[in-house]
Amino acid sequence: MKEFYLGSSYYPEWWSESEWEEDFAKMEALGFNAVRMGEFAWSWYEPEEGKYNFEPMLRALDCARKHGIGVVMCTTTAVAPPWLYKKHPEIKGGNKFGHYDFGGRKGQCLSSDIFLEYAEKITEKQTEALGSHPAIIGWQLDNEPGFPFWDFDENCNIGFRKWLKKKYKTIDVLNKAWFSMMWSNVYNDFDEIQIPVNISEGGWSPQVQLDYRRYFSFTFNRLLYMEAGYVRKNSPDRFIYTNWPGANWSVNCFDGEKYLDYAAWDNYVPQPFGDDYRIQLRASMEHSFDRRLSNGRNEFLVAEQKAFVDADTNPEVIAAQTWLNISHGAFGTLFFEWRTPNGSFEQGYDGILGKDKNYRADTKPVLEKLSADIRKVYPIIKNGKTESDIAILYSYENSWGMRDWVVDGFYDEEFFNCYGGFKNALKTNIDVIGMQDDFSKYKIIVLPNHRITTEEEAQKIMHFVSEGGTVVMNSECGTRDENNQTRELLAPGLFSELCGSSVSGRVYSADMKKHTGECNVRFADGSVYELTGEVDAIATDTAVKIAEYTSGRLNGTPAITSNDFGFGKAILYGFNNCNIYFYEKLAEIIGKEYGIEPLIKAEDGVILSSRKCGDKEYIFAINMKDSENSVRFRYEMKELISGEKGWGKFNLAPYQTAIFER
Amino acid sequence: MKEFYLGSSYYPEWWSESEWEEDFAKMEALGFNAVRMGEFAWSWYEPEEGKYNFEPMLRALDCARKHGIGVVMCTTTAVAPPWLYKKHPEIKGGNKFGHYDFGGRKGQCLSSDIFLEYAEKITEKQTEALGSHPAIIGWQLDNEPGFPFWDFDENCNIGFRKWLKKKYKTIDVLNKAWFSMMWSNVYNDFDEIQIPVNISEGGWSPQVQLDYRRYFSFTFNRLLYMEAGYVRKNSPDRFIYTNWPGANWSVNCFDGEKYLDYAAWDNYVPQPFGDDYRIQLRASMEHSFDRRLSNGRNEFLVAEQKAFVDADTNPEVIAAQTWLNISHGAFGTLFFEWRTPNGSFEQGYDGILGKDKNYRADTKPVLEKLSADIRKVYPIIKNGKTESDIAILYSYENSWGMRDWVVDGFYDEEFFNCYGGFKNALKTNIDVIGMQDDFSKYKIIVLPNHRITTEEEAQKIMHFVSEGGTVVMNSECGTRDENNQTRELLAPGLFSELCGSSVSGRVYSADMKKHTGECNVRFADGSVYELTGEVDAIATDTAVKIAEYTSGRLNGTPAITSNDFGFGKAILYGFNNCNIYFYEKLAEIIGKEYGIEPLIKAEDGVILSSRKCGDKEYIFAINMKDSENSVRFRYEMKELISGEKGWGKFNLAPYQTAIFER
Amino acid sequence: MKEFYLGSSYYPEWWSESEWEEDFAKMEALGFNAVRMGEFAWSWYEPEEGKYNFEPMLRALDCARKHGIGVVMCTTTAVAPPWLYKKHPEIKGGNKFGHYDFGGRKGQCLSSDIFLEYAEKITEKQTEALGSHPAIIGWQLDNEPGFPFWDFDENCNIGFRKWLKKKYKTIDVLNKAWFSMMWSNVYNDFDEIQIPVNISEGGWSPQVQLDYRRYFSFTFNRLLYMEAGYVRKNSPDRFIYTNWPGANWSVNCFDGEKYLDYAAWDNYVPQPFGDDYRIQLRASMEHSFDRRLSNGRNEFLVAEQKAFVDADTNPEVIAAQTWLNISHGAFGTLFFEWRTPNGSFEQGYDGILGKDKNYRADTKPVLEKLSADIRKVYPIIKNGKTESDIAILYSYENSWGMRDWVVDGFYDEEFFNCYGGFKNALKTNIDVIGMQDDFSKYKIIVLPNHRITTEEEAQKIMHFVSEGGTVVMNSECGTRDENNQTRELLAPGLFSELCGSSVSGRVYSADMKKHTGECNVRFADGSVYELTGEVDAIATDTAVKIAEYTSGRLNGTPAITSNDFGFGKAILYGFNNCNIYFYEKLAEIIGKEYGIEPLIKAEDGVILSSRKCGDKEYIFAINMKDSENSVRFRYEMKELISGEKGWGKFNLAPYQTAIFER
Repeated sequence: MKEFYLGSSYYPEWWSESEWEEDFAKMEALGFNAVRMGEFAWSWYEPEEGKYNFEPMLRALDCARKHGIGVVMCTTTAVAPPWLYKKHPEIKGGNKFGHYDFGGRKGQCLSSDIFLEYAEKITEKQTEALGSHPAIIGWQLDNEPGFPFWDFDENCNIGFRKWLKKKYKTIDVLNKAWFSMMWSNVYNDFDEIQIPVNISEGGWSPQVQLDYRRYFSFTFNRLLYMEAGYVRKNSPDRFIYTNWPGANWSVNCFDGEKYLDYAAWDNYVPQPFGDDYRIQLRASMEHSFDRRLSNGRNEFLVAEQKAFVDADTNPEVIAAQTWLNISHGAFGTLFFEWRTPNGSFEQGYDGILGKDKNYRADTKPVLEKLSADIRKVYPIIKNGKTESDIAILYSYENSWGMRDWVVDGFYDEEFFNCYGGFKNALKTNIDVIGMQDDFSKYKIIVLPNHRITTEEEAQKIMHFVSEGGTVVMNSECGTRDENNQTRELLAPGLFSELCGSSVSGRVYSADMKKHTGECNVRFADGSVYELTGEVDAIATDTAVKIAEYTSGRLNGTPAITSNDFGFGKAILYGFNNCNIYFYEKLAEIIGKEYGIEPLIKAEDGVILSSRKCGDKEYIFAINMKDSENSVRFRYEMKELISGEKGWGKFNLAPYQTAIFER
Repeated sequence: MKEFYLGSSYYPEWWSESEWEEDFAKMEALGFNAVRMGEFAWSWYEPEEGKYNFEPMLRALDCARKHGIGVVMCTTTAVAPPWLYKKHPEIKGGNKFGHYDFGGRKGQCLSSDIFLEYAEKITEKQTEALGSHPAIIGWQLDNEPGFPFWDFDENCNIGFRKWLKKKYKTIDVLNKAWFSMMWSNVYNDFDEIQIPVNISEGGWSPQVQLDYRRYFSFTFNRLLYMEAGYVRKNSPDRFIYTNWPGANWSVNCFDGEKYLDYAAWDNYVPQPFGDDYRIQLRASMEHSFDRRLSNGRNEFLVAEQKAFVDADTNPEVIAAQTWLNISHGAFGTLFFEWRTPNGSFEQGYDGILGKDKNYRADTKPVLEKLSADIRKVYPIIKNGKTESDIAILYSYENSWGMRDWVVDGFYDEEFFNCYGGFKNALKTNIDVIGMQDDFSKYKIIVLPNHRITTEEEAQKIMHFVSEGGTVVMNSECGTRDENNQTRELLAPGLFSELCGSSVSGRVYSADMKKHTGECNVRFADGSVYELTGEVDAIATDTAVKIAEYTSGRLNGTPAITSNDFGFGKAILYGFNNCNIYFYEKLAEIIGKEYGIEPLIKAEDGVILSSRKCGDKEYIFAINMKDSENSVRFRYEMKELISGEKGWGKFNLAPYQTAIFER
Repeated sequence: MKEFYLGSSYYPEWWSESEWEEDFAKMEALGFNAVRMGEFAWSWYEPEEGKYNFEPMLRALDCARKHGIGVVMCTTTAVAPPWLYKKHPEIKGGNKFGHYDFGGRKGQCLSSDIFLEYAEKITEKQTEALGSHPAIIGWQLDNEPGFPFWDFDENCNIGFRKWLKKKYKTIDVLNKAWFSMMWSNVYNDFDEIQIPVNISEGGWSPQVQLDYRRYFSFTFNRLLYMEAGYVRKNSPDRFIYTNWPGANWSVNCFDGEKYLDYAAWDNYVPQPFGDDYRIQLRASMEHSFDRRLSNGRNEFLVAEQKAFVDADTNPEVIAAQTWLNISHGAFGTLFFEWRTPNGSFEQGYDGILGKDKNYRADTKPVLEKLSADIRKVYPIIKNGKTESDIAILYSYENSWGMRDWVVDGFYDEEFFNCYGGFKNALKTNIDVIGMQDDFSKYKIIVLPNHRITTEEEAQKIMHFVSEGGTVVMNSECGTRDENNQTRELLAPGLFSELCGSSVSGRVYSADMKKHTGECNVRFADGSVYELTGEVDAIATDTAVKIAEYTSGRLNGTPAITSNDFGFGKAILYGFNNCNIYFYEKLAEIIGKEYGIEPLIKAEDGVILSSRKCGDKEYIFAINMKDSENSVRFRYEMKELISGEKGWGKFNLAPYQTAIFER
C-alpha cells in the first residue's frame, strides 16, 4: 500500500450534522488520514422500506474529504432495520430458546432467502449512491462476519439439507460419511435431517458438527461474495476487505480470501501491562494469519483497535501495539472509536475524545507522535515483505472438529500457544499457513492437533520431510479422515511410518495426577513441564526418544520422539493441550538443532519481526514491557524513528519501538 | 397506631374447621391479638368461575373475633385458581423458555387485561362479602408485589408499547431517548418494539432496561391501586398496606405510597448469631425505608417474620428482632406462620406450633414474655416519631439502571452498606429518603451511585449544600440524564463545580490488583481499605484531598476530596462497590467533623434507635450479640421494660432490649 | 445358570459383512461364548416403513453360531428411525426448551400412543423373524430403560392426567393428597393439571414430583411388559432381562421384576486404582440389588462393562471386576464393546480390539486367562446362592421424593454409603431388599432416610424388632405418609415409641460449622465424624445415648440412641447425608454388639463375598488394591483357581482373586 492509514471509526448518524466539521477537523489536527464509517447505518439509509436517503452520508463524505480524511466505507448488512424484522420476523435466526427477538445486533439468518434478497438490494443501492465518491479509499464488507456464532432455525435446516444434498449427492453416501448406523440414525432422505438443537441424548455427532460448521462458514462467504460483486462494479479501484473478528473463528478465511483484496481483523487483544507481554504474541499470531490471507499481497489491515488506556496503564502501549501491527505487515490501523455513544448497547465504551469532547490528556501526545513517526518511516518500508523459515499450519476443519459451539476451542488455544512459543523462543518471523500452501520454502512446519488429514495431505507432508524438511506433530495427527471419522490405524494414523513411533495406550493427565500426584514430560536437560489433556504412551519403532514421561506406569517411557525420514525429520509428541512455555522449550530444542538464529539478540519482552524491501531488511524491535529493555547487534545499523546509527547495545524505553535497517 | 399488633399468618383453608377453635384459643393464650389471613384463598372463595363461597372465611372471622384476635384480611390476587388458567392460559406471563405453566405461585401477567378483569371481580366480591366484618382491623393488598421479577410475554409487549407511546408521544422522541441510531435500531413505529428476551447479541440496552423496569413497576401499582379502591369502598376505616418483599425491589414504593396507609415488609433478614450482628442493620435499613413510605405517619408494619430458631440459636433473637422493629417505628409484627403445611410447596417450613401441634419448647417462653412486655411498654411509646439529622437517598431509577434482571443488584448492595455503615458508626437514627423529599431538615445527605440525575435535581442538591448542608457522593453521581444517557461532561457530571474535582481516568480494581497486587484507599490516619469495582482518578480544582490511593500510577493521588460550596460542603469519593467497613470509616470521619453524637454510649453490637413523644425521647438499646454487652450514660434514666432507674453502666444480657426514657 | 456367559457387545450393522467372520473367530479364540447384538438396529431391520429386512441379522446369527457364540438378542426400541420421527414428530418428548429434535438416542415419548404402536409392531416382527434362531440364548428388552430422565411434553400431560384419574378416582381425593389448598392450587378437574416444566415460582411440589415419578416409571414398565410378551411367544425358552443403567434410577425395578427372568445392569463403576478400592463397593451394592431383582433366582447379569484400561492402570482390574460380579451371583459378563465405531456419537470409545483391529497388547493376556479360569471354576459354583444376615432397605418412593430431576440424588448417595460402609466393615454378604420382602431371615435391617412409610410398613418394622431383630434408622424415618405429606408427629414420626426418642429441634450442619467451626458426632471411643446435611437434636425417652454431638448448644446431647423394644433393638441417628466412613464405624459398633463375623480375616482392600452350594460355601477374596495383600484362616481350604490347598496366610497379588471352598 502506498500510504499508511491511521484513523478511527466514526458514526456521523449518531451526531447532529453541525458537529461533524469539528470532529473531522480534530482528526486532521491529530494527523489522522482515514476514517471508517457506516457499518450499522441501514436505518439511516433506508428508514422505511424502499425510501432511500443517502444524502446525509454523502455530506459526511464531503466533510471528511475537506479535511483530507480518506473514508473506508462499509456495507451495511450487519444489522437490519426494525421495519424489516417487523415485516419478516422469519429472517431472524434462533437458538435453543427459539427464534431471536429483534434488538441488539446480528442474529439475521444467513440461510434466509428473504434476508439475502434485502441485503442484496441495500448493497446495490448503497454502492450505486456512494461508490463513486472521491473520499472513499476502500470498502469493508459487513462487520465481523462469523457472528452470530450459532444459528439454528428452520431456515438453517432447509439450507443445510440443500447444501448436504449438493455435497453428498445421495443419502447413502451421507449415511456412510456420518456413520449413521450407530444408534439407528440412518436417513432415507435429506428431508429427515434436523440440526440437533434440543436433543434428548447424544447431541452433535462429530460428523454432523463438522458439516454444519462447514455449511455455516459457507453462508457467510456467500453473503460477502455477493457484496464484493456490487462494490467492484459500483466503486472500482478501491481496496476491499472484511474485518474478521479473528481469522480463526467460524468462517473459513481461506475461502473468504478469494473475493477480497486484503484481510483485516479487529485487534482487541488486551493491552500489555508491566512484565506480562506474552499476550501480545496473540496479536502477532493473528497478524501473521491475516498477512497470509491477502492473496499474496503480504499485507493486512487492523480495522479496530482500542484507542484508550485505563488510568493505571502506560499510554505508550497504544503506539507499541500499532508498531507491532506494522512490523507484521499492516498497512493501516483504525482505532475504535472517535467518540463514545451517549446511550444504547455500547454506552460507556471509551473513544479517542473524552466524554467532554476534548482530547484525553493521557493519549493525545502518544497519538500525535505516532502519526508523525509513521509519516516519516512508512514511505521507507512500504514495499516490505515478511519472510520466514518456520510455519505453523492452521486448519479450520480441525478447529471446528475439536470444539462444540464455543467461541474459541481447545484447538485454537493450543494453536496460539504453539505459534507464540515458537515466536517468543526463536525471536524471528513465523508464518501461518494452510495445507494448500507451498511447503518448499520452509525448513520447519508445525501441525498441532491436525487429526483430520486426507491421504493426499499426508503424502504432501511426507514429501516435505523426505526432501529435507522438519515436521513437528502430536499423536492426534493423521488419525481421522475428511469426514472426521477415525482411521482403522493406531495413532498417529497416517504418520506412524513417518514418525517411526505409534501409540500403545492413553491416560488422561487429570487421572494420572489423581493417581500419582503429577503428570509431566522431562527433557534431556532435566527440566520438566506439566501436562494437561490426554497423554499417549508411545512405542518407538525407528524413532529415538528425546523426552520422557516422569510418573506412574509411563515413567521413563518416550514422550517426544524424533525420526529420520528421507532427508528430513519428524518430531512427535504424545500429548496435547500444551501451554506456551512447553512450546517455547520445544522451539528452543528444535531451533538449536537446526541453527535457527534470532533476527538480532534481544532481551525477554522484546518482540522482533522483520520486513524485507529489496536487499534491505528492516528489523522491528518492540519493547512490550513497562520497564527498560535492550537489544544488541554487532554491525552498524540505522534506527529509522530516531535516525540514530550505531552498534552494540541499544536501549529501549518502556513500550518503545526501534526499526533497524540492515 | 393505638395498639401494637402481635400475631401470625394463619391459613384456615388448610385445616378442617374443627381445628380453628383450638388454634385461635392458643393464639389468645400466647398473648397474640392479630392474625393475617387469606392472601392465597381465591380457590377457596371461588372454586368454580362465578360460584362464590365466603361462608367459611366468615366463620373463621367469627372464630378469631371470639378469641379477641383482630384480622388483617388480604386481597387474594397473588395466585389465580387453576380453572382460570385453564380457561385463559394467556394470562400467565413467560420467560426465556416461553409461557409459564400453571402451578406454584404468581406468574400471572399484570399486562393481561383478562387477568386484570378477573382480579377486579374477585376483589369486588371479596370486599363486599367480608369488608364489614368487625373482626377485620386492616387489609393487605395482594402479596409481595414485585414477583415475578421478570415477565416477558406478548401481553407485556403490547402493554409496554402502549406505555411508551403515552410517555414519548412520537417515535422520534423515543429514538432520541434510546439513542436508537446505534446498531441501526431506529424504530418507525411503536409496534416494532420488542422486549429483548432472546437476543443474538446486545441484550437489554441501558435505555430499554430502565424503561421496561419503569413499566413493570407501573403494572404492579396499577393493580394495587384498583384493589385499594374496593377496600376503601367496602371496608372503610381499616388500615391498608401491602407487604413489600423489601422496599428496594421491582416496584417503586414512592408511587405505591399514594394509595396505601402504611408500608409493610416481610422481614426475612437472617437471625443474628454469636458476634455477627451487622446482618440486623439490613433490617434497620428496611425499617427506615418503610417508615418513610407511610405517608408521613412515621410508622410501618412487619407483615412476616421467622417464628422459629434452629437448634443452635438462642431463641431470644425472636424478641430482639421484634424490638428492633418497634425501635424503628413498627406498629405490629406478624410472624410467619402459625402452623406448618403438611404438603405442597412450603412443606416443612416451620411454624410457631411444632409438627405435633404443641408449642415448641424453645420459643414459647420467649413469645409469652415478648407479648407481655409489649403490652406494658407500647402504650407509653405509641405516639413516638423517629427524627434524624442524616439521610441516605434512595433512587429506584438508579437501582434499576444499574442491574440486569437480578433480584438484588449492585446499587442496592452498596446502598445497604452505606446505610449500615453510617448507622453502625454514628449509633443514631438514619433516614432513608427520596429525591422529592424536603432536604432542609437534614445536616448530611448521602447519595451513593446516584448517576441518573436531572438538572432540577442537581439544582436542589446544590441549593442544599449552598445553604449549609453536607452532601456525600461518588464520582458516578450526576453523570447520566433521565434517559440513562451519559452526559457530555466529565464525571461527576453535573456536580464537578459542586465537588471542585473531576475524573481524569478510570481503572478496574481487579486490573489494578492484577497489576500491582493491591487497590486501596488510605485515610489520613494511615488506615487503608480495599477497593472493588471501578476506581476513578480524580483531578482536584478547588477541592482538598482527604484520602488517597495507594498503588500503581495512582499512588498518592486523591481518592476522596472535600470542597466548600456556599455555606456547605461536598465530599466526593472516586470509586464505588464499597463495603460496610468503608462506610463506617467514612461516617466516623464525617461524624467527627460535624459533631454527630451517638444517642448514648454503647459497645459494639448494640443497635441504638430512638423515638420522640412530645418532650420525651425513648432510646432503644438492643444487644444483638449472644454475649453480655453494655451501654453507658451520665443522667439518670428509667428503663421501661424492667422499670429500673439509674445511670452509669447498664448491662445487657444476650439479645436483651432496654428502652431508656430521656 | 448352567453356563457362564463371557463376551461383548457387537454391532454387525456397523461393519461390512465380510468382516463378521473374522470378528466372531477372534471372539472364539479369546474364549468368549456370548455376544449381545441389535439394541439399536431398528433402521437396519426396517429402513422404510413396513419394509422389513431381517436377512442380514439372520446371517450374523448364523455366523456367531458357527463360532460357538451364543447370542443375546435385543429388542430394538431404544432408538426409532428417522422416517418415523419425520412422519410423527410428536412421538419425541420434550424438556424445558420444548420438543426434542431428532438425532442422538432416546427421547421418544413413552406416553405417546403412536410410538407405542410402532414399538409393538417392530417388536412383533423382530421376534417372529429372529425368535427361533438357535444361536439366540436370551433376550434383552430395550436398552437402559429410565432414559431419558425427563420428558415433559403434551403427551405426558395427557398420560399423567389419565394415570392420576385412575389412581385418585375423584379430583377431591387428589386435592387432599396434594395439599392443593396451599397457594390456591385446588383443581376442579384432572384436565387442569399441568406438569410444572416452566413455572414462575414454586416448581414441583413434593407431592406432584413423587406422583410424576411414579407415572414416569410406569410408562417404562408398560413398554417392557409389552415387549416381554412377544419375546415369550415368539422365542420361548430363552432368558429375558433388561439392562438397568443401575437399579436405583428412574424405573421401579420391583415392578420390572415381574415380567423379566433376570435383572441385569451396566457396570460402569470406575475401575479401581492404587489404594482407592472403595469405588468397587458401588458395584457390590448394585450386584446385591440386581441379585434381589431376579425373581428369587439369586443370580443376575452384567450386560456392559468396560473392556479396556488406560495406560496408567493395571489391566488385571478387568479380571478383578469380573470376579466381583461372579462373587455376588453374576451368571455372565458382556463387555462393551468388541470394536470401537469409526464415527458418530460414541466415536473414540475404546473396544476390546484396538483401532487397528488387533488385540490390545495390555488386555489380551488378562482376558484369555479370565476366560480359561471361568471355564474351570464356574461349573463348581454355578448353583450357588448368596445368604446374608444383614439387609439394607431400598425405597424408590423415598429416593424420588428426596430428589429433583437429577440423575442421582441425595437418597441414593447415602444409600450407597450405608451399603458400602456395612459391607466394608463387616466383610460379609449384605442384601438389598424392599419393604415387601420377608424380614424374618435377617438379624439387622438398615433403613437410611426412609421418611415415606405407611402405617402397615411401620407395623411390619416394629414386628420385626419385637421378635428380636435390630433396626437402624435416622430421624427422617416414618415422618411422611404415602403422599409425601408430613405427619402431624414429631420425628421420627411413626417410630418415636420404637426408638424411645424424638426430635426437639434441627440445625443445618453448614450453619453449625459457621457458628462454631465444627459439626461432629463423637462415639464412645472418642472418635469423631464430621456431619453434613441436617442435624436433629434428640430428646430421649426410654432410649440410651450411644454417641453424642460435640459443639454449640448441642454439645454432649444424644446423636445416636439405642432402645430395647420387645426382644429387639432400634438404633436411631439424628442426622443424614453420612459418608461411607461414618457407616463403617456404625457397622463396626453394631457388628461387635451382635457378633457379626467376617467370612474370613482379610486386610483392608480385599472384598469378601460368598456363595453357598448345598453344604459347601465358596468364599471369594478379591484384592482390589494395586499392591500385595492377604487373607488368613485357620482351617484348611482349597483355592479353586490355583487348585492350591492350605491354611494360615494366603497372599494375593495386585487385583488377584482367590476362591476358597469351605
